[in-house]
Amino acid sequence: MPHIDLPPLPGIAGLLAGYPDTGDLLGRLGEALLRGPSPLTPAQRETIAAAVSRGNECTYCAETHGAVARELGGDAAGMEALLAIAEKVRVDGRSVTAEDVARAREAGADDRTIHDTVLIAAAFSMFNRYVDGLATTLPAESAQYAERARTLATRGYLNPRP
Amino acid sequence: MPHIDLPPLPGIAGLLAGYPDTGDLLGRLGEALLRGPSPLTPAQRETIAAAVSRGNECTYCAETHGAVARELGGDAAGMEALLAIAEKVRVDGRSVTAEDVARAREAGADDRTIHDTVLIAAAFSMFNRYVDGLATTLPAESAQYAERARTLATRGYLNPRP
Repeated sequence: MPHIDLPPLPGIAGLLAGYPDTGDLLGRLGEALLRGPSPLTPAQRETIAAAVSRGNECTYCAETHGAVARELGGDAAGMEALLAIAEKVRVDGRSVTAEDVARAREAGADDRTIHDTVLIAAAFSMFNRYVDGLATTLPAESAQYAERARTLATRGYLNPRP
Repeated sequence: MPHIDLPPLPGIAGLLAGYPDTGDLLGRLGEALLRGPSPLTPAQRETIAAAVSRGNECTYCAETHGAVARELGGDAAGMEALLAIAEKVRVDGRSVTAEDVARAREAGADDRTIHDTVLIAAAFSMFNRYVDGLATTLPAESAQYAERARTLATRGYLNPRP
């Protein structure tokens, strides 16, 4: 049961609906990070979001973004250097070294790619804590993740709930 | 030296200026969380932001929000139960218990107060990682924290840099 009274929607959906002032900004931030302009594809960005959420053991976020990444054909292959940076950011931002960044550049990353990787990892460090810190609920059936993922894959994060 | 090329502004300021699409949303999120409608005063919210940033050893954020909290007359006294929740969120969102929340309610917190405390702690878990994960610089002189704090205390987080 959530720690506070929320609309009966699982995970972050209940928080965004119950607290619409911040919900609107957080939805727009998610859209900008995962669908806005970036050298990284939406599939690559969902892969980073899913990896960070798995590391934080945030079930709702990990299942949701894992399903969206699969829906979009996401593949961690070729993303090792970026996922290593994301994992360091998840644990402690200060642990990212110049060598980590150099490795990503050798694999083709430019400034914007490195920036977006760090900010997505940082943002999911927030979303995961928001979802779990208030003990939001999980979907009643796990099939709902795949269903929701199809909507998020095609429509994105702005008003995705019809 | 930052891991990526940024405008010569310390801490998050260089990131917000260098990446204005997300910078605009992050600035508005900071304003909503620290100055928007809430049962918590701006001073109390800056106290939570400073405590989380100190816990994460994010020097720029801890010094900045510590200075803003002092400028606004912030005082951790009477905030023990909320600061305990914020510290748990900082470490791992899942660690917040029903007992932690009950203790905050006994001290007068309502749903919105608990929500705002969790979201501020979660958001600074993001801001701290964004600032340190990209190795942003510190102000050249520590007096700049107090100077900037006066601006942030009076004008908030929307376009605070004249």
